[in-house]
Amino acid sequence: MTKTKTSSGNFFEDFRVGQAIDHATPRTVTEGDVALYTALYGPRFAVQSSDELARRLGFPRAPVDDLLAFHLVFGKTVPDVSLNAVANLGYADGVFGVPVYPGDTLSTHSTVIGLKENSNGKTGVVWVRSVGANQRGEVVLSYARWVMVQKRDASAPAPAAVTPELPRAVPVERLSVPEGMRLGEYDFTAGGAPHKWGDYAVGERIDHVDGMTLEESEHQLATRLYQNTAKVHFDQRLADQGRFKRRLVYGGHVISLARGLSFNGLSNAFRIAALHAGAHANPTFAGDTLYAWSEVLERQEIPGRKDVGALRLRLVAVKNEPAARFPYKNAEGKYEDAVVLDLDYTALVPR
Amino acid sequence: MTKTKTSSGNFFEDFRVGQAIDHATPRTVTEGDVALYTALYGPRFAVQSSDELARRLGFPRAPVDDLLAFHLVFGKTVPDVSLNAVANLGYADGVFGVPVYPGDTLSTHSTVIGLKENSNGKTGVVWVRSVGANQRGEVVLSYARWVMVQKRDASAPAPAAVTPELPRAVPVERLSVPEGMRLGEYDFTAGGAPHKWGDYAVGERIDHVDGMTLEESEHQLATRLYQNTAKVHFDQRLADQGRFKRRLVYGGHVISLARGLSFNGLSNAFRIAALHAGAHANPTFAGDTLYAWSEVLERQEIPGRKDVGALRLRLVAVKNEPAARFPYKNAEGKYEDAVVLDLDYTALVPR
Amino acid sequence: MTKTKTSSGNFFEDFRVGQAIDHATPRTVTEGDVALYTALYGPRFAVQSSDELARRLGFPRAPVDDLLAFHLVFGKTVPDVSLNAVANLGYADGVFGVPVYPGDTLSTHSTVIGLKENSNGKTGVVWVRSVGANQRGEVVLSYARWVMVQKRDASAPAPAAVTPELPRAVPVERLSVPEGMRLGEYDFTAGGAPHKWGDYAVGERIDHVDGMTLEESEHQLATRLYQNTAKVHFDQRLADQGRFKRRLVYGGHVISLARGLSFNGLSNAFRIAALHAGAHANPTFAGDTLYAWSEVLERQEIPGRKDVGALRLRLVAVKNEPAARFPYKNAEGKYEDAVVLDLDYTALVPR
Repeated sequence: MTKTKTSSGNFFEDFRVGQAIDHATPRTVTEGDVALYTALYGPRFAVQSSDELARRLGFPRAPVDDLLAFHLVFGKTVPDVSLNAVANLGYADGVFGVPVYPGDTLSTHSTVIGLKENSNGKTGVVWVRSVGANQRGEVVLSYARWVMVQKRDASAPAPAAVTPELPRAVPVERLSVPEGMRLGEYDFTAGGAPHKWGDYAVGERIDHVDGMTLEESEHQLATRLYQNTAKVHFDQRLADQGRFKRRLVYGGHVISLARGLSFNGLSNAFRIAALHAGAHANPTFAGDTLYAWSEVLERQEIPGRKDVGALRLRLVAVKNEPAARFPYKNAEGKYEDAVVLDLDYTALVPR
Repeated sequence: MTKTKTSSGNFFEDFRVGQAIDHATPRTVTEGDVALYTALYGPRFAVQSSDELARRLGFPRAPVDDLLAFHLVFGKTVPDVSLNAVANLGYADGVFGVPVYPGDTLSTHSTVIGLKENSNGKTGVVWVRSVGANQRGEVVLSYARWVMVQKRDASAPAPAAVTPELPRAVPVERLSVPEGMRLGEYDFTAGGAPHKWGDYAVGERIDHVDGMTLEESEHQLATRLYQNTAKVHFDQRLADQGRFKRRLVYGGHVISLARGLSFNGLSNAFRIAALHAGAHANPTFAGDTLYAWSEVLERQEIPGRKDVGALRLRLVAVKNEPAARFPYKNAEGKYEDAVVLDLDYTALVPR
Repeated sequence: MTKTKTSSGNFFEDFRVGQAIDHATPRTVTEGDVALYTALYGPRFAVQSSDELARRLGFPRAPVDDLLAFHLVFGKTVPDVSLNAVANLGYADGVFGVPVYPGDTLSTHSTVIGLKENSNGKTGVVWVRSVGANQRGEVVLSYARWVMVQKRDASAPAPAAVTPELPRAVPVERLSVPEGMRLGEYDFTAGGAPHKWGDYAVGERIDHVDGMTLEESEHQLATRLYQNTAKVHFDQRLADQGRFKRRLVYGGHVISLARGLSFNGLSNAFRIAALHAGAHANPTFAGDTLYAWSEVLERQEIPGRKDVGALRLRLVAVKNEPAARFPYKNAEGKYEDAVVLDLDYTALVPR
């Protein structure tokens, strides 16, 4: 009579297309989470840093960093969706909704939107749409994600393959501008740089210059804060038996670090509106030093707004060498070994 | 004229049976403490995680983890009781009272309830009853603890030996159910598992499966957060001169980590009501990977309640090997080297 | 078209005497920051720890540690003043104004008050006066600091040398006593020691006894929390190419650790009123174990107050050996290698 109460997570054959999952552990976000987020990544975006400034721009108080909301929403899905994941394959169609404030309580609900068994019969790909909502049921984030999941039993029959259609990018019409936000009042001195939306040119690349060396306890503290339970981040004994011999850093930790570094060059791009695609190109471990660079992919007007525009950006994180030469893909189109993150997202920037 | 203002703590001959100690540094608990607690141990108990859920169950907001309250109450006693302790011998008769909420201010008062000099004449055992109370004087935790303390002067005369009578377990009648708590409304989906009080059987053992590798900075951050000043946790230079050559991890850090791991299998056992006994069977150091298992010792009805029952549990933490074989004691009744914690406690569980 | 948006900070020739700088990123202080500060340094000063106690003494709630305010105010200046600093030469004339509470938003403004090119033509000294204010414009801290900054272009002409006059110590008349504070109600038991202002004698030295070993992630978490962006604290790859081969610990981290250790001997010296001078005598790295000692330099009455007095103190932090022999300067007047901090400050103490 052992282990019967312990969840070992879902395996590939446990998922059904259309299946709805209410994830456990609703989470009230607090000022404590914000302080830890600051200590972990050092973000300096002024709107998230100052209640006073946020109020002058029409927010009730400083919203929390959009990626903190992302990690909390994402973390809840892990015990149900990716505890037996072999690989985190991608994100798409991520739209950020209402801002999150300390005091809000977040819950996540997912729907299985695709399934495809791999030809080896041992694993399959699971697509889910996950929606994070606050205590009033307002959507704070909706995104699709697909992961390769192990089968419990290789002889279990393959389901009918369903591959969802996902947009390559969220169209600008679907972006959400926080209600009441008026960026005409934006303070570029407090923001840290004079650059407006119109100052960025498509094709422009920015080396964010600074580097940050990761420590084991930092990514563990972060990943636990998000109540993300994936074993690979925490159990060195398990890692010793695996391929890398190291605890893997949660991919979201790398995203937040790179985003923090991107402040130097994108100081006023304070609000993330969409997450179009993301790849964790190579694994990251404690001891790695991360650098980052960005490229402006699109500059989009937002319908009906003269105070704010959208910048679609590629954010690339690089390990153990500076980003000055903009490391990316090699001649065969494969990521260079130094590249650990390739993120395609849209930020709102005052005009 | 040096060191005169510095406290070197109490030695065995400084204690008297009946002596009352008002410990220094009252401590206001905040949402910041809760966030750090989450980052340090990754707890997922839904009632402590969500203000919304807590309110639906009759709490004014999410209470803080009972062990966070324990560590804060305990931490205050260290400068007076155990700064010169050679060993932390045991806990008994721990009863949790009113829940603790952010904004509460905790103080601790202790009474010496027993003294017994050891035959070597160099050390003695000190028993104290410590009571933590909030700003309204309501008891949040009362427990007995005994420690082996050094004598300042081996020639000091031995006091009359007084050994207090302590119950082997807190009887169910003395358990406190938080006022206003109505678990008829409990949400098992949010809680993370369907298991109710009645689903657990006496003798059932649960392997909590997951592992967590400890880092030096994590236990230091935790122990400082609790304002616990025991030198052995912080001073590597001192440790280099000692037996282990390593900084010792605060035993309470191990308790909280094991309790966090126990969520997987005991997801709805969210409230600790009593702490019957505890032994730190072997020392824990940074780099150790901890696993945990539980055994159901008793299943008790709570007088007058149909919505909630009590589970008396043994929680065992194991280092550097999985808990799958339930490591515990050897044929001679001694703890195996891998066992670092043996905790006998009672949790409240919805029925 | 690269790097154009990235700030590389100011070089010596970018500064002009009289130049005013509004630093970016106003910062709302929260209970989360306070909890992290406690976890990082373990301070136990009762007034900062307990809202209840603080209210009894006339504060609206527990103020945050004065050094947390210092680090936040200081951190904002780094991107503009010291990103290209070769050395942090000194502090002077630091006066703490109104206390800082969670919810306050801090901004920093600086004025260049002195400039002097070095004879090598490659660097120069920049003096700034920095003023941190809350959301009502009340000064929380004003201090002078001077740093040696690189020139971008060695051939740039030297400015006229201006060396500001700075007092060797802030006179007692300029010290600020928090409005409404009544220390007649002070609780020495809660404070942790019986020692009043009058119990300290000029010339008295106190060995603070305890030691604390620093970890890499601890100083990184701290320095990011303060939004201090100096590269030397974060980038191990950069450090590998430098003189020390190690990430440098932010000097303010050492100040806070030493101040935390000083509680044992100065338990009731809870409020810092002035910072007269400070030297980071030697670099500190992760793995170092810090000890501290203090010397009473002056005991001053505060005009019109019988409930509180001022103690001018020297706080010395020592690495990798105990402070028992009070390590300081050698026969030639140079700091011993073990000395990492020499801080001359004034604390308020109940009488």
